[in-house]
Amino acid sequence: MDWRLLLELLDERSLASMIDHTMLKPSATLEDLERAVEEYRRYGFACLALSPYHALVALKRFRDVRICAVIAFPMGFSSPRASSMLARELLEAGVAELDMVMDLHAFKAGDYARVKEGIRAVVEEAKSFGALVKVIIETGLLNDEEKIKASQIVVDAGAHFVKTCTGFLGGRATIHDVALIKSVVGDRAKVKASGGIRHAEDALALISAGADRIGTSTGPRIVEEFRELVKGR
Amino acid sequence: MDWRLLLELLDERSLASMIDHTMLKPSATLEDLERAVEEYRRYGFACLALSPYHALVALKRFRDVRICAVIAFPMGFSSPRASSMLARELLEAGVAELDMVMDLHAFKAGDYARVKEGIRAVVEEAKSFGALVKVIIETGLLNDEEKIKASQIVVDAGAHFVKTCTGFLGGRATIHDVALIKSVVGDRAKVKASGGIRHAEDALALISAGADRIGTSTGPRIVEEFRELVKGR
Repeated sequence: MDWRLLLELLDERSLASMIDHTMLKPSATLEDLERAVEEYRRYGFACLALSPYHALVALKRFRDVRICAVIAFPMGFSSPRASSMLARELLEAGVAELDMVMDLHAFKAGDYARVKEGIRAVVEEAKSFGALVKVIIETGLLNDEEKIKASQIVVDAGAHFVKTCTGFLGGRATIHDVALIKSVVGDRAKVKASGGIRHAEDALALISAGADRIGTSTGPRIVEEFRELVKGR
Repeated sequence: MDWRLLLELLDERSLASMIDHTMLKPSATLEDLERAVEEYRRYGFACLALSPYHALVALKRFRDVRICAVIAFPMGFSSPRASSMLARELLEAGVAELDMVMDLHAFKAGDYARVKEGIRAVVEEAKSFGALVKVIIETGLLNDEEKIKASQIVVDAGAHFVKTCTGFLGGRATIHDVALIKSVVGDRAKVKASGGIRHAEDALALISAGADRIGTSTGPRIVEEFRELVKGR
């Protein structure tokens, strides 16, 4: 589908509701967090994606915010037990979504059982809270065969989303990768495109390709640009 | 002290014994791990710094290797409980050193108690194993006042080393930062310089400035360059 059709099919609110508003820069302060919360509220984004620390702070201070917290971010350097422990802490505090990075070194070692074990450990914790789990496979470090294998593992482990990139390791969301992942997961999981998404046209093209969510730190600009594109069509 | 004096005072083996041989690139394979182990043995580096997954693999396969594993790497996105759980797993498996990133978001929020709690949780686990804990404060994201404060927290929490950078967030080890940290910690902790150290002259200058360890993925080249510098002096 041509992404321009989405200018007819979507409105600002529905576009915003597909965007995970992301605030993960390592130097972020509480002022950055407050600004992100304000933007989340103003635009009606899907959720606010934060570090564990900011997630816990936000859950105490801003009760109306749907919080997504990251686990093993951004390199997947954890263990199934440590990830499940962190997941439980965050879920008990009220986190609604978890974005975890698969164990990249285990994957590159061909130890798919370990990769799956790590995902399943988090999925099991999330289940009883009705929380969503998205798994970042870091497409920028994988060839197509590896992207397919990783997507299969994510789905088999019971996670809700396959997510493309962290945005911190050079990888970028591409139409090719979203379509490829979508072709693998079908209706068994959703797709989150993330990594380098900075403009409305790109976000819309990725949605056209099959992305159910867009992860970006520039959600406000994307929605503003969408507004202009709709006006100008 | 002029770093050129170290060409007289050090030999290849003693320089290598101050280098943490680091292999943390997110796309690393088992072949990369094997190569790193071989280099570790050939040069006699202080330890081999690995991801949790590679650390566990290396401990099973290569019994003669002193392993350092990273925790909350590279952004400090964890919790005290999750970090201590991961530390315990790694220590029980035989890891001799732990390089953890302090909780950068907690630090930037001025929540120094939380930063210290996270470090202390890992230090407590390490204690009964006689393992070393190095804490990365990520100097590239801090001003001098923050570097001083962070170093104080690390020492107060009982860690053995203040470490400059992960190498993944743009920060670089500088002579200024090593000297500054050294002036804060004195004899209460050691200093590990890491981030962008690629050549022998730089490694030696950082040692002259007070670094007790050098963290780098190019240890073999640094030792080779040192040999040439000694020859050519």
